[in-house]
Amino acid sequence: MAESRASAAARPRRVSARRRGPVLERAILDAVLDQLGTVGWSGLTMEGVAAGAGTGKAAVYRRWSSKEELVVDALRTGLPELDDAPDHGDVREDLYRLCLRVRESMYSRPGFALRSLLHECDSATAVRFQQLLLTVLIEPLTRLFRDVVRRAVARGEVRAEALHEMVIDVIPAMLMYRSKVCGSEWDASDIADLIDRVMVPLLRPRR
Amino acid sequence: MAESRASAAARPRRVSARRRGPVLERAILDAVLDQLGTVGWSGLTMEGVAAGAGTGKAAVYRRWSSKEELVVDALRTGLPELDDAPDHGDVREDLYRLCLRVRESMYSRPGFALRSLLHECDSATAVRFQQLLLTVLIEPLTRLFRDVVRRAVARGEVRAEALHEMVIDVIPAMLMYRSKVCGSEWDASDIADLIDRVMVPLLRPRR
Repeated sequence: MAESRASAAARPRRVSARRRGPVLERAILDAVLDQLGTVGWSGLTMEGVAAGAGTGKAAVYRRWSSKEELVVDALRTGLPELDDAPDHGDVREDLYRLCLRVRESMYSRPGFALRSLLHECDSATAVRFQQLLLTVLIEPLTRLFRDVVRRAVARGEVRAEALHEMVIDVIPAMLMYRSKVCGSEWDASDIADLIDRVMVPLLRPRR
Repeated sequence: MAESRASAAARPRRVSARRRGPVLERAILDAVLDQLGTVGWSGLTMEGVAAGAGTGKAAVYRRWSSKEELVVDALRTGLPELDDAPDHGDVREDLYRLCLRVRESMYSRPGFALRSLLHECDSATAVRFQQLLLTVLIEPLTRLFRDVVRRAVARGEVRAEALHEMVIDVIPAMLMYRSKVCGSEWDASDIADLIDRVMVPLLRPRR
């Protein structure tokens, strides 16, 4: 068993010359996500992507004329869908589960790729990705948090004035800031702290 | 008058061969801040710094052996002191003035330089600056916000449980997130919104 694993690992990556169309495209886009997550936007090259996909540079250039186009397609097709907001009839539970889901997607491979890009996205090179990031991540996420708060307001669990963009942005802002600045991994107890110490007092109605 | 201004502008930058010691060092470190604020960390070169300071590359290399060392010195010596926290006996006023002060320093030239670096600081190249950024910016800032909240708790204006790192981080997190993700310029009314819609409800004692 141990031997067969070792020989499998040693076996060189098999590259079929017959891969084409969607299969080859997916391999190339997967290689883009890998590169973004490891060497980042600045280290990503068409050559590196081709090598990662086990194909030639010509096969990449035939489909995408620049690394910008490649990255846009890789993120657009690779990111997990955020679906609907959790709806358990309890704002604390809903926010907690939504945070867990955000964390899960941020630690996925496309999530790593996205974070790497997001952190570079106000530099001169990457400013063109800001709109994409808003469209594929920030706006859907903000909509889910707003849904959770809106339902809680309707149940009388949350004060109506909390349905404001400044309040809705607090969770994404904290997730980004503490992960970036404090190196937080956001384990379950950190998320619970964020909900209980910040969001619950911020949202509760004044008695 | 107009003519003399025009000829002053056209006059080539005068480089005195006699600049040395602290004067030359300051000119070099100023050029580093300029470069960080314009071309960013990735675009900064020893050549560009030398040209910006109106000196030769050798004069730069004589003092600093790498661009890392240059940037560390430029930030350490160039950043404005954050001094003491405002203390007007009113938490809303104190937070508001502290936010204005943070914004002022973030829009200064060393502030632009720092932001440029901060946005790159979890990439492989810039991870070494994270500790510097914590030391020169994040920790002093966090201390000031904590001072404001601590005094307000002592006055009975703020609930005691708000003296928690998660709560203290909300303002810096929001300043970073909305400036980075939403492109917010944080004008005075945005800051007032942040204080009134987020911080006041978050901090006030439960009645």
